[in-house]
Amino acid sequence: MGRQNDKPGLEGGGPVDDLIRAVVFDDALQVVRRPLPLPAADEVLIRLRLAGVCNTDLELMQGYKQFSGTLGHEFVGEVVEGPPEWRGRRVVGEINISCGECDMCRHGMPTHCRTRRVLGILNYDGAWAEYFRLPLQNLVAVPDSVPDEVAVFAEPLAAACQILEAGVIRPSDRVVILGAGKLGILAAQVIRLLGVDLAVVARRERQAALLGGWRIRAVARDALPAGQADVIVDCTGNASGFADALELVRPRGAIILKSTYAGLPAADLTRIAVDEIRVVGSRCGPFTPALALLEQGLVQTAPLIDGRYRLADAAQAVEHAARPGTLKILLEP
Amino acid sequence: MGRQNDKPGLEGGGPVDDLIRAVVFDDALQVVRRPLPLPAADEVLIRLRLAGVCNTDLELMQGYKQFSGTLGHEFVGEVVEGPPEWRGRRVVGEINISCGECDMCRHGMPTHCRTRRVLGILNYDGAWAEYFRLPLQNLVAVPDSVPDEVAVFAEPLAAACQILEAGVIRPSDRVVILGAGKLGILAAQVIRLLGVDLAVVARRERQAALLGGWRIRAVARDALPAGQADVIVDCTGNASGFADALELVRPRGAIILKSTYAGLPAADLTRIAVDEIRVVGSRCGPFTPALALLEQGLVQTAPLIDGRYRLADAAQAVEHAARPGTLKILLEP
Repeated sequence: MGRQNDKPGLEGGGPVDDLIRAVVFDDALQVVRRPLPLPAADEVLIRLRLAGVCNTDLELMQGYKQFSGTLGHEFVGEVVEGPPEWRGRRVVGEINISCGECDMCRHGMPTHCRTRRVLGILNYDGAWAEYFRLPLQNLVAVPDSVPDEVAVFAEPLAAACQILEAGVIRPSDRVVILGAGKLGILAAQVIRLLGVDLAVVARRERQAALLGGWRIRAVARDALPAGQADVIVDCTGNASGFADALELVRPRGAIILKSTYAGLPAADLTRIAVDEIRVVGSRCGPFTPALALLEQGLVQTAPLIDGRYRLADAAQAVEHAARPGTLKILLEP
Repeated sequence: MGRQNDKPGLEGGGPVDDLIRAVVFDDALQVVRRPLPLPAADEVLIRLRLAGVCNTDLELMQGYKQFSGTLGHEFVGEVVEGPPEWRGRRVVGEINISCGECDMCRHGMPTHCRTRRVLGILNYDGAWAEYFRLPLQNLVAVPDSVPDEVAVFAEPLAAACQILEAGVIRPSDRVVILGAGKLGILAAQVIRLLGVDLAVVARRERQAALLGGWRIRAVARDALPAGQADVIVDCTGNASGFADALELVRPRGAIILKSTYAGLPAADLTRIAVDEIRVVGSRCGPFTPALALLEQGLVQTAPLIDGRYRLADAAQAVEHAARPGTLKILLEP
């Protein structure tokens, strides 16, 4: 236990020996015990406080990106090893680990780093572990007033904020969100802050009621007229979502793609050209605005939480998360 | 010949009787004689001086939009009936005939009018006729210094200018144009005026030589590295063009679609989302900048002309235009 003596932060952190618990995927999901990670010079060691299960995690377990390693990229944790000014602080973290030197990094697009690794997604062990590493430059401090159960939404909320980062949606727009899952509901809460005319296509009663509680209009797909919306945000993750988007958008309107899609869907490219539609892809987003919205209570996350499991019970957590209609499942050490 | 007495402009215009020659498509191409068109109150009568054959014409003859009527939308002509200030003037014309009252028209997007008709394309007889009608508001006067053989390129050149109208391409960009047909060559000449790093994928020797003469780099598809171009302009008109565009564009780059595509091509929408690519459709463009470029000699059109036929020989003209590698075919009365 030589290292432990150097790390006062570890002492209050619960049961620590040289082996820590981690949720690993390698053809199958396993909860394993493995050595305490050793952070590199530019990395800190983080003790997990709370993690989230994302659809991407479920896709990785179905073979997306041939991932193997520790899963998890939505987290709030505490720095236990690193520069003194960070030790003991609660943090969330940018999940893209970028080189800082390639053309994309040099041009201010580090989330598109040519050699990026991604926490729990691509060549970098994730946050579903009692302790995990992350580069110091990826840390974002969590305000004291934001509890763990809220802060753990910073990463998916940042992805929702990225929709606005595209600079496409304006307050006077008519906006339709397709899909009222976890991402769709966060996106709706962010987009409504612009004051837009917003409709969310929601198939489930519960989601519709949740949206209605925030005075967001939940509608059936067939209730929307063709060719009228200024912007469509596709959060469905399936090919019919894109076809619906093309049908609903007005000429010269925009479609924002937040989804990944299985295979290569058929797409009416002629319609895009003739009606001069813009299709804009959108992925990871900025954490600082996301935390600001959470701190100010402008986005609600509590009603999205459907379950909370220990890391040791990750298999049940994942099974719950995969059930249709489930919103957010959390994991605690 | 009662009407003729009121129309001095008609007198110098060649053989005029109550029947005029027109090239009509109705399941098959026919050269017919039909009555002189009678312009409505907001329309003028135009005597054709020169017309062009466009790929869209060829597509209409293959069933696109179930068109039937007089073909032709690329023209330069002379106003022979209309307000005195327009009579005798050489004109080209905006091909979209818009209502001025729908939401798209009111918001400054008349080319996307909800009830638009389109000259020789949609519910409006075209310009492959000795005389044809067009709304007064669609006319654009041709500068005296621009000869007919140049002015007839105003419409396709306007479509090329529309690529810049999207506001996507910047001087410091690396731009790739896919396809070196009529549109690709005009697009290349317009885009190079920004000073961009430009490469055009050209499969034919002649097109490559033409581009080389303007110091535009013509390259083979396989000579281009993946994921490097800031903007791809797809002028290929086939589904593989879009797949190539997705492969060549850098993360956060843009793809401009100038093409119509047969059917619904498969498209890697996940790549669009993950790499945050923008896909921007582009169709008809502004005539005034196009005429300015032609007047200033900044765009060359003479090397594109591959043949010139009489309206009476439209069948041969169309057959020539459809031969692979053919650039512009012109029609004269």
